Amino acid sequence: MATSGGAWRTGRRSKVRRLPERGLYDRATIEAVLDEGLVCHVGFCGDEGPVVVPMAYARVGDAVYVHGSPANRTLRATGTGMPVCLVVTLVDGLVFARSGFHHSINYRSVVIYGTAEEVADPSEKRAALDAVVEQIAPGRAAEARGATGEELRATRVVRISIDEASAKIRTGGPKDDPEDIEAGGIWAGHLPLVVTPGVPVPDVDCDERLGVPDYVAHYRRPSGPSPATR
Amino acid sequence: MATSGGAWRTGRRSKVRRLPERGLYDRATIEAVLDEGLVCHVGFCGDEGPVVVPMAYARVGDAVYVHGSPANRTLRATGTGMPVCLVVTLVDGLVFARSGFHHSINYRSVVIYGTAEEVADPSEKRAALDAVVEQIAPGRAAEARGATGEELRATRVVRISIDEASAKIRTGGPKDDPEDIEAGGIWAGHLPLVVTPGVPVPDVDCDERLGVPDYVAHYRRPSGPSPATR
Repeated sequence: MATSGGAWRTGRRSKVRRLPERGLYDRATIEAVLDEGLVCHVGFCGDEGPVVVPMAYARVGDAVYVHGSPANRTLRATGTGMPVCLVVTLVDGLVFARSGFHHSINYRSVVIYGTAEEVADPSEKRAALDAVVEQIAPGRAAEARGATGEELRATRVVRISIDEASAKIRTGGPKDDPEDIEAGGIWAGHLPLVVTPGVPVPDVDCDERLGVPDYVAHYRRPSGPSPATR
Repeated sequence: MATSGGAWRTGRRSKVRRLPERGLYDRATIEAVLDEGLVCHVGFCGDEGPVVVPMAYARVGDAVYVHGSPANRTLRATGTGMPVCLVVTLVDGLVFARSGFHHSINYRSVVIYGTAEEVADPSEKRAALDAVVEQIAPGRAAEARGATGEELRATRVVRISIDEASAKIRTGGPKDDPEDIEAGGIWAGHLPLVVTPGVPVPDVDCDERLGVPDYVAHYRRPSGPSPATR
């Protein structure tokens, strides 16, 4: 593992072989995708074959934390030092080419190969659970009621140490064949897609005098690719 | 496999054990999630451990198709009858509870256990590629230039037959402990998130007289959970 500011190790598994111009490996790019995502997909090899599970998560330094009930099969299976593959994908838009062949999706994704270990230390567990809340909405963890000892015991937290990581990004318009551009007649371009917050819905039991917190009322995810990759 | 209109077989692997009230297995629910998604995550057990890859896809009947270059490692590895796990996840909102513990994400996900096979038949390949374009924007395949024989040969298409499938859905507000609701003082509720199209960006080489097609100008994904699960 590189020190902060460097690149994560890129191994044989995480090297982007197809369309290598879309492969990016610097730490800032990878962290930006991980920090913008809300859901990751964790894959492991179970007794009966491959298993992929969508999970909330948080990145803290060089690890990604996931959590759930102690009975959660994925956490129980992987938390014993199992190798996992974790992916975060952000869909940024649709690419309409003249040819069906060159249609595409604009996206940013990060693939992590790591090792999953259950977290036993209560303070690391507590910090991880706070980080998952912060991943959903920065500022919220300080306002929500913190975990009780009972809740900590009723939660399994698994740390996925990042052994290898890589990012893959596609931006911009279609890359049609010259003959199709020449021929004309078919609209081509791209359509950005953005995750947009709707109107906050207060809980039925919520005191109406409690204003909607700023991080909910003006919610936004960091949007668009980082300036370096536009 | 059940006939159309029935349910897919739910086996031991795909049965939702945690929070079983969130598990749904009827075909209409599963198909609605698959048809709304833009990206799936395909997991398999590679020589060096688990691999998860984000991919564009299309559902056609009881199969999901993915495609890519003949050199694509995932397609090459899985297209030989390999068992795969494929997940489509739609994020619908964020759940702000009084306690950090009860924070959550509203989502709809489908987990498929299936068998991947490379498609050799040119007409099935062509139909699958059209379906991937239609998955991005219904109506587009008829307008875009269809695949040439050369393009078909330069594309590997893999059919993932759905052996087992299940859906998992969370909707609505937080489910706090009575003591926390009683205590008050912390805003609680949920925030819907919607994928919103931005302004279409015509390709630089696109004739300005070609109007933006309706399926781009008024683009929308089917939004929100199906009526049966609201």
